[in-house]
Amino acid sequence: MIVGILGGGQLGRMLALAGIPMGLEFRFLEKNPEAVRGLGEVFTELEPFAKGCDAVTYEWENVPVEQVQWLEERLPVWPGSRALEVSQDRLREKEFLNGLGIETAPFNTGRFPGIAKTRRMGYDGKGQRRVNAADEVGPDEIVEDILTFEREVALLAVRSRQGEIRTYPLIETTHRDGILVKAEAPVAEVAPDYAHRIMEELDYVGVMALEMFEVQGRLIANEMAPRVHNSGHWTIEGAYTSQFENHLRAGLGWPLGRTEARGHALSFNLIGELPDPSKFPEGHYHAYGKAVRPGRKVGHVTMIDAKVQHV
Amino acid sequence: MIVGILGGGQLGRMLALAGIPMGLEFRFLEKNPEAVRGLGEVFTELEPFAKGCDAVTYEWENVPVEQVQWLEERLPVWPGSRALEVSQDRLREKEFLNGLGIETAPFNTGRFPGIAKTRRMGYDGKGQRRVNAADEVGPDEIVEDILTFEREVALLAVRSRQGEIRTYPLIETTHRDGILVKAEAPVAEVAPDYAHRIMEELDYVGVMALEMFEVQGRLIANEMAPRVHNSGHWTIEGAYTSQFENHLRAGLGWPLGRTEARGHALSFNLIGELPDPSKFPEGHYHAYGKAVRPGRKVGHVTMIDAKVQHV
Repeated sequence: MIVGILGGGQLGRMLALAGIPMGLEFRFLEKNPEAVRGLGEVFTELEPFAKGCDAVTYEWENVPVEQVQWLEERLPVWPGSRALEVSQDRLREKEFLNGLGIETAPFNTGRFPGIAKTRRMGYDGKGQRRVNAADEVGPDEIVEDILTFEREVALLAVRSRQGEIRTYPLIETTHRDGILVKAEAPVAEVAPDYAHRIMEELDYVGVMALEMFEVQGRLIANEMAPRVHNSGHWTIEGAYTSQFENHLRAGLGWPLGRTEARGHALSFNLIGELPDPSKFPEGHYHAYGKAVRPGRKVGHVTMIDAKVQHV
Repeated sequence: MIVGILGGGQLGRMLALAGIPMGLEFRFLEKNPEAVRGLGEVFTELEPFAKGCDAVTYEWENVPVEQVQWLEERLPVWPGSRALEVSQDRLREKEFLNGLGIETAPFNTGRFPGIAKTRRMGYDGKGQRRVNAADEVGPDEIVEDILTFEREVALLAVRSRQGEIRTYPLIETTHRDGILVKAEAPVAEVAPDYAHRIMEELDYVGVMALEMFEVQGRLIANEMAPRVHNSGHWTIEGAYTSQFENHLRAGLGWPLGRTEARGHALSFNLIGELPDPSKFPEGHYHAYGKAVRPGRKVGHVTMIDAKVQHV
């Protein structure tokens, strides 16, 4: 069984590392394959990549929708192109969520100051800035009201081809310089309802992440990612079944694995440096095989049931 | 960091799959590399294999001792050649164990019937047979008294370069046709004392397995394996740190990870067939990338905290 992955960054790497033990083989469509080197054949062109694949998934949400649609006509692809279309455009995403009764930050209200965000291609806080008047807003931006939130949380959920949905414990994320630096699980009750609505509406297959703000006890959806997600790295050691294994099981039509946390997990990213693994005796050290550059996510560490201060 | 592995079967595969996430690279000395294909460069000659390695370990105990000694003069190698020498010869192994006050089955007592075993190259019950008289015993065989045991157990232990020793929970193994088909953990109190004696005497580094019989509450050592071991596959999902990760951490001078079981684990081998993974919804499915042949170990499944009948 050969699984094709659109993209070959650390999420593609971790998908392959979850699938190879299960006997799966991988190939990647990726121009800069440093993180997946050695884990499967790498292609730069879609057609030769697709030829010989048994099924295809993607590891980032800015894959061209046309690519995924072209693949969908030929192969099983998960999650589908509709999830991709919705999540690639912030305006469409918010309208989609609101249409399902899922609250988002109010947007394009005409109130200022606000946070202008590019409709497309924003990630990790890039493409966002504070604006004070309408004439500062570009045509491809939306403006969100400024929210005062208590914390940021993320929900990972997975849906099988048969329609079964399982959710991971809600986790808390902390951003530093706009990049996720810590995930903690479980810090709250599981809040699966949003995920159920979204996944059923989209006939979704695979893992999805929903980033939310907690505002006075309410969960306000921020954005959804139709893929495995940085906020779920803790699941590799911290859950009965990792997000990567479950994404593959879902896409291949296998039964889903259990998503409960196995004790207390804490993950933090290694950004711009790869410290000596000996510094984390209680940790599971992950390095992504990427060249180290300032500000670049090059690894993470997960602690299980450790008595440690937050980093 | 490039780690060389002598051998490229499923244990080498699982070592690589534990090390790649930590940013390690692998190469293998192996003539039939089907299980490690794609996980690193494969060599058939020792010198080119060794050139460029940062450290070397082995995944089977019948590696030629001279190879390991040659490597030891040039590179960090773990476990050392002495552990290999001792464990390659059943007679020497038993004398070594008895010398440390570790009880084995009585051997070469002149009592018959007994079990004749080849001194070298026996594994999985191969090279063993019942004999009724001295003239049935070959010159390269020893004869063990027939033991009536309650069960077979195995202890996995790991020792770091700094001399720290950690032991995994004692596990019970069940043999079918002489091949390990099931491991269960934890079924008994941890019995680390034997491992401490052996590892300290050998200045051992890495994971070691000690197979034992339980006879009227006493533990009788059967054989030791100076490597990661089939009876420890459950540790991948069932322990805080897998035997494979800990073997690498030990050899690279990193601190050892915790060896406690995380709940109840049960593993069974897939022998001679690779059933549909959907048949094990509660299991973690492992396939070794090897061609399926009758009697050949081609995978295993581990269940964690599952309510299942023994297989």
